[in-house]
Amino acid sequence: MSATFDMPMRIRFAHCDPAGIVYFPQYLVMTNMLVEEWFNERLAIDYAHMIQTRRVGLPIVKLDCEFSRPSRMGETLTLALDVTRIGRRSIGVAIVARCADEVRFRSAQVLVTTSLESGQSIDIPDDIAAALAAFAPHAVQSEEQRS
Amino acid sequence: MSATFDMPMRIRFAHCDPAGIVYFPQYLVMTNMLVEEWFNERLAIDYAHMIQTRRVGLPIVKLDCEFSRPSRMGETLTLALDVTRIGRRSIGVAIVARCADEVRFRSAQVLVTTSLESGQSIDIPDDIAAALAAFAPHAVQSEEQRS
Amino acid sequence: MSATFDMPMRIRFAHCDPAGIVYFPQYLVMTNMLVEEWFNERLAIDYAHMIQTRRVGLPIVKLDCEFSRPSRMGETLTLALDVTRIGRRSIGVAIVARCADEVRFRSAQVLVTTSLESGQSIDIPDDIAAALAAFAPHAVQSEEQRS
Amino acid sequence: MSATFDMPMRIRFAHCDPAGIVYFPQYLVMTNMLVEEWFNERLAIDYAHMIQTRRVGLPIVKLDCEFSRPSRMGETLTLALDVTRIGRRSIGVAIVARCADEVRFRSAQVLVTTSLESGQSIDIPDDIAAALAAFAPHAVQSEEQRS
Repeated sequence: MSATFDMPMRIRFAHCDPAGIVYFPQYLVMTNMLVEEWFNERLAIDYAHMIQTRRVGLPIVKLDCEFSRPSRMGETLTLALDVTRIGRRSIGVAIVARCADEVRFRSAQVLVTTSLESGQSIDIPDDIAAALAAFAPHAVQSEEQRS
Repeated sequence: MSATFDMPMRIRFAHCDPAGIVYFPQYLVMTNMLVEEWFNERLAIDYAHMIQTRRVGLPIVKLDCEFSRPSRMGETLTLALDVTRIGRRSIGVAIVARCADEVRFRSAQVLVTTSLESGQSIDIPDDIAAALAAFAPHAVQSEEQRS
Repeated sequence: MSATFDMPMRIRFAHCDPAGIVYFPQYLVMTNMLVEEWFNERLAIDYAHMIQTRRVGLPIVKLDCEFSRPSRMGETLTLALDVTRIGRRSIGVAIVARCADEVRFRSAQVLVTTSLESGQSIDIPDDIAAALAAFAPHAVQSEEQRS
Repeated sequence: MSATFDMPMRIRFAHCDPAGIVYFPQYLVMTNMLVEEWFNERLAIDYAHMIQTRRVGLPIVKLDCEFSRPSRMGETLTLALDVTRIGRRSIGVAIVARCADEVRFRSAQVLVTTSLESGQSIDIPDDIAAALAAFAPHAVQSEEQRS
């Protein structure tokens, strides 16, 4: 029983390489936009305000991807995000991108809440932690599991 | 006893995000440039010619990264590439980026030789296989290990 | 009396630079996406098919921009495109990006229909010329004006 | 009698589009890197320090480009920068990119010194004005010409 946040993403000329398929770093740009959209639209945490005013960043510390099939200009992918783990200072997400029913890539990412003033990791702010827990109650770590 | 290919990379304004640090997909662009430079300068395989004339591509199928410390505009990283595995149709590489002695990120990648006409994987062409074996003899898989 | 094609564009973290505002080359990526969307959605010319199958490209030969006000993460711009001139082998467009009523940038661009096989400019294909003329009849050049 | 600052730029896979040529916004990224390198290497103004510590930015307000010939992966361009005008708050530059003797694109740009705190234009700081005047004495505007 897990919540998912979906976002369509049209593959544009700008995303593609001389081989005519999505240039793989562009997939990572897409996953970053997905996280941003998820914060804004589902968690109701204003991502721009979080970065610019609260000075809380969400850098990635761990990234695993499998690219199973190429994607071409003109296709529309659906990117779907699940939360796999909510720690004290980090969030684990699993992202899968499909075109119709075909998986194009999967990515597991660990994001860490960070002070943009000090550059140090910080506890997930309470409002964000609450929004995450409401989205993915199964992913909240118990006190002894949290890091 | 393993060969390494090194390349310096200056962190530019264009690489950085509103948090003032390298935007992580830019790191992947850098690793792609490193592979391209390694082919051109060390393996003596003309990468542009390989793509445009021979129509052999080198898409990534597996990517693992750890981002341990942020990098800032003005810094110069050294990206170093080792070959971990040479299969029949795939190449495993390990990349580490350092600023002075501090590791900034590590990446393990699997690249697959692919026909840009058919979109299908193909055996590593002989001249490329020979150049790879000369660079990293320890990484060549025996016949039964190869896939 | 001029037709306009509009497209909203949300400013994302990925578009912004260490100064916290849109990195100007990203504005050009947006204008390229606008042209692509205009072809697909309004002219009913499949842009991906035009590039990949018909092998007709639309490179830019002339670009003028004025950046009047910066744009920030989280804002939504509206990009609007008019056609200023339809020649034999080239299309002139005028693009303006606004946030609410404030102009953020303006761009005038000349695009040239080009064979991706030969790399040479070609006459605008008939179906595209007809779609352009229907969109912007005022912009069609007379025979002696065309180049 | 005008000074010029030159920088070679290798065209990489990452710069190219599905048409196999440089994606034009990438040319603008290159011109931005050229300005940054010119500040660092010729003007002896640390660009990263200027942005991050002094909080002085150099946004572009006017951009004109002509793209005369496409560039392909594997080529090395030489980008050359001249200063055309030094005002009180703005710098005019002219950039030309050549491959061997063939011009690939030309760009005229107006950059404005800006406070990254207030977002407002500011007088060119004295040390930068002095470095600019030493580089391009012919481009300094007289008091009544300056804006």
